[in-house]
Amino acid sequence: MRATTIHAPYDMRVEDVPEPVIQLPTDAVVRVLRACICGSDLWAYRGEAARQAGQRIGHEFLGIVEETGGEVSGVRRGDLVVAPFMWSDGVCDYCREGLTTSCEHGGFWGSAGYDGGQGEAVRVPFADGTLVTLPSAAASDERLLTALLSLSDVLGTGHHAALGAGVRPGATTVVVGDGAVGLCAVLAARRLGAERIIALGRHQARTDIARRFGATDVVAERGEEAVAAVRELTGGQGAHAVVEAVGTEQSMRTAVHVTRDGGAIGFVGVPHGSGTGLDLSAMFDRNIALRGGVAPVRAYIPELLPDVLDGTLDPSPVFDMTVDLEGVPDGYKAMDERTALKVLVTN
Amino acid sequence: MRATTIHAPYDMRVEDVPEPVIQLPTDAVVRVLRACICGSDLWAYRGEAARQAGQRIGHEFLGIVEETGGEVSGVRRGDLVVAPFMWSDGVCDYCREGLTTSCEHGGFWGSAGYDGGQGEAVRVPFADGTLVTLPSAAASDERLLTALLSLSDVLGTGHHAALGAGVRPGATTVVVGDGAVGLCAVLAARRLGAERIIALGRHQARTDIARRFGATDVVAERGEEAVAAVRELTGGQGAHAVVEAVGTEQSMRTAVHVTRDGGAIGFVGVPHGSGTGLDLSAMFDRNIALRGGVAPVRAYIPELLPDVLDGTLDPSPVFDMTVDLEGVPDGYKAMDERTALKVLVTN
Repeated sequence: MRATTIHAPYDMRVEDVPEPVIQLPTDAVVRVLRACICGSDLWAYRGEAARQAGQRIGHEFLGIVEETGGEVSGVRRGDLVVAPFMWSDGVCDYCREGLTTSCEHGGFWGSAGYDGGQGEAVRVPFADGTLVTLPSAAASDERLLTALLSLSDVLGTGHHAALGAGVRPGATTVVVGDGAVGLCAVLAARRLGAERIIALGRHQARTDIARRFGATDVVAERGEEAVAAVRELTGGQGAHAVVEAVGTEQSMRTAVHVTRDGGAIGFVGVPHGSGTGLDLSAMFDRNIALRGGVAPVRAYIPELLPDVLDGTLDPSPVFDMTVDLEGVPDGYKAMDERTALKVLVTN
Repeated sequence: MRATTIHAPYDMRVEDVPEPVIQLPTDAVVRVLRACICGSDLWAYRGEAARQAGQRIGHEFLGIVEETGGEVSGVRRGDLVVAPFMWSDGVCDYCREGLTTSCEHGGFWGSAGYDGGQGEAVRVPFADGTLVTLPSAAASDERLLTALLSLSDVLGTGHHAALGAGVRPGATTVVVGDGAVGLCAVLAARRLGAERIIALGRHQARTDIARRFGATDVVAERGEEAVAAVRELTGGQGAHAVVEAVGTEQSMRTAVHVTRDGGAIGFVGVPHGSGTGLDLSAMFDRNIALRGGVAPVRAYIPELLPDVLDGTLDPSPVFDMTVDLEGVPDGYKAMDERTALKVLVTN
């Protein structure tokens, strides 16, 4: 089969690789229908995250179950399924508590020896714990299929951010970051009842989506000017609930300073850079909480799925470029150059 | 009247100062019966926090209302009252939400131009918002009076830490820090239903109090050895709820690494030092939350008071040295040299 591999920074290839087979009785093999490229894939692409030459890549996919191991009972050949961005056994302490990202047997797609989502098929470990069945009819609905793919990562991650930020009905929410996760956090905040949603971002195509998703205000400034603008919009107090969906020192610093006393930051931007951007003294004096991290999206799929199926929640506009599998390297280039927000891969 | 003043690092004096008088109709004057010295007072003592020569000091006291301004209706002359470690107006947005430490008109005892608790009397701004009336009978019960004084700061701060750490019935709790606040956090965690309470501390007199307060285990190691010991005690996972009651980089680092995935750190140690001690990548990967800060103890007094009055909650053992007002400089010396845990001041 064909699959995307990474050989060195900026050297993405689509190559012939062995067909996946069942290795353990808890495995399934899934034929991929839709995958996509994540902002975090760009770290490997740019060489900021190390990869062995030839490693697979891609952690968001949905497809059709092709084969299952002898101990798999939750999914069957022919099922349309979505995979979260990590696999998990579904039975350990952490999985039972809903923290599937801390699963004792969990792992990442594309790690050495494992398939990635940006390929024709994937061997899925712990299929019962990992995969979620979708209505088969969705397979023939292009828009819906794209929306469902967001359950793999960005929608659940946006939801995690909104929960971490403590979004409640009536809450004023700020979202720092206009990438796909930030935009999904706007959607999630609206779904959780936020009254006012202030999106920080300077790319109009993206902030237009933010408005469509429920943002009531857009702040294009950065740093101290962004803080001043948010304070102006919130009677000087800042926002109860703040989403940090970038992961840089500057974005975290902005998040701290736009948070209202007693409020919370939901952080889902993977931290990079040497400093944290956290002003601990300010957080102490003003009782600002920090919650979040890698999102246990597997645990959120059952909650979010009905809203995606009935169209209440439609993150599909975050996908603004589509490629086929052979076009994946072009997709990386477009996202790296910021000419694409998020690239859909159709098999 | 006599009051404690600070003139330079290590230069504490008890001097004649003007009697406090009502300056605003929302003021009260309180004659101090009991005060105490806080670990955070030592920063001024050691010159780590700047003070103007002659500034008053002390932010924990209880006493008898001597006079009230024309707009004060909540307390009356002769009432036994306790003051939280900050004053607050009781009516602003933040006060109504229970975040009295962010009061728009709030302030600290002993700040320039204001009285401190380590003196014979105090002018109390916003008396209605600030003071809480206690049963007059308590004035003749030495042990109870000492326990009630803890409502000024340490007990409420320990409670805030336990809440921030998310202590729930059955939770495993770690308390980093064996000072008076850490010990009160042990008490508070037990009150909130923690099943297992692991106290980190190496001073046996203090850890003995921790055990008396409800600690089920004591870990004397520090740093990585402390982390290993806690993991050993918790099946390798760490604790759901962790209190950070020191405020140094090392203590915060320890707190992060003893927290179970998905758990929370309740931090009440005032941050000092240049770094935060926060390993943001570890917090991200393991979904560790950070909550806390300066404790809105005023808001907690009504909840904690009944338990102190009926003896269920007795923090009085944290006071292990008693001085009269003239002995306050000796009290600072003893706390600085760690020969005293917390010094009670009787007027």
